[in-house]
Amino acid sequence: MVPKEIKNFIDAFSRLPSMGPRQATRLAFFLTSLDKAALHELESSLGALQGLDRCNECFFLKHKDESRCAICSDPNRTPDVIAILEKETDLLTFEAAGVFRGKYFILGKLAEKGVLETAQKLRLEHLKQVITKKNEHLRELIIALNPTSIGDFTADLITKEFTGIVQKITRLSRGIPTGGEIEFADDATLTSSFEHRD
Amino acid sequence: MVPKEIKNFIDAFSRLPSMGPRQATRLAFFLTSLDKAALHELESSLGALQGLDRCNECFFLKHKDESRCAICSDPNRTPDVIAILEKETDLLTFEAAGVFRGKYFILGKLAEKGVLETAQKLRLEHLKQVITKKNEHLRELIIALNPTSIGDFTADLITKEFTGIVQKITRLSRGIPTGGEIEFADDATLTSSFEHRD
Repeated sequence: MVPKEIKNFIDAFSRLPSMGPRQATRLAFFLTSLDKAALHELESSLGALQGLDRCNECFFLKHKDESRCAICSDPNRTPDVIAILEKETDLLTFEAAGVFRGKYFILGKLAEKGVLETAQKLRLEHLKQVITKKNEHLRELIIALNPTSIGDFTADLITKEFTGIVQKITRLSRGIPTGGEIEFADDATLTSSFEHRD
Repeated sequence: MVPKEIKNFIDAFSRLPSMGPRQATRLAFFLTSLDKAALHELESSLGALQGLDRCNECFFLKHKDESRCAICSDPNRTPDVIAILEKETDLLTFEAAGVFRGKYFILGKLAEKGVLETAQKLRLEHLKQVITKKNEHLRELIIALNPTSIGDFTADLITKEFTGIVQKITRLSRGIPTGGEIEFADDATLTSSFEHRD
């Protein structure tokens, strides 16, 4: 009863994260109400993602025909500090804050089981090689993973792996967020915030 | 810093309903993690929507090279009852319930101001012509719009327009939903449900 184009669209798009069959269905019918140019723009912006690849150094995204991403190839970034992040969107948040001028390293989305996937192990192995082969000295490795149990578990693992290779390994501090209220802080946050008072 | 392919994708997709910039950003990075075949499937299922058009009779969707949709061209559907629906997804819900074997008429998403858009007025005008020109008698016009103030307002308007042209104009009943609890029913629902007891 529904044209197969709609069915195919729903099948394909409802597999995407944070998009169930209902949202995909609504999206399909909405898209059919767009004019040809608008639909084509969406289509080509989706297809253009095929022109991207991972940076050989930090695993952020870069154009296929470039060897490194915009950050790794930026001569103004400090090369002797690396921040390990889980996701590309974490990098965007870091860059938006403008707090960090070093380089990044994207580990990839952590599995809920807390076990590193093979691809993530390979990335860390690659990072180790980059660090040990580097002529310049790596001054600091910042483990900027989420302060969750899985993030902490992975951070411990990375700390063990890189102890001896990097002089200084740090983590982001945890505490009451700016603008947050002590009244509503959970026990772990308040305890950590209290213990790290300065 | 972000490749322009990602930027373009976020620009285009964050304009879609129920998709803000944050979700579009996350989606962009997720898509770059897919293999080529999966990305291509999404792209082509999106592009294929261009092959769709509105049915000349009910304004549901059909293939461009067909004159009517699957429902309007189905000889087993009763042609003498038409249900006016707001959205294509309402039609899917009707069909899933399997309660109705007549034909549909899609009015298009009602504006929040409660005023019919020109395209909607044209569709109703078209429906009027179809009904008056029809050889068969239209037995019933079911106005199946949402029981909201805008839906009711529009239903009243349609009732006025079609009185004299159609013998019988009905609306969906309103009341306590099956499985719902009287305790939590709002005043309007309970009042309506009480008054229409049978």
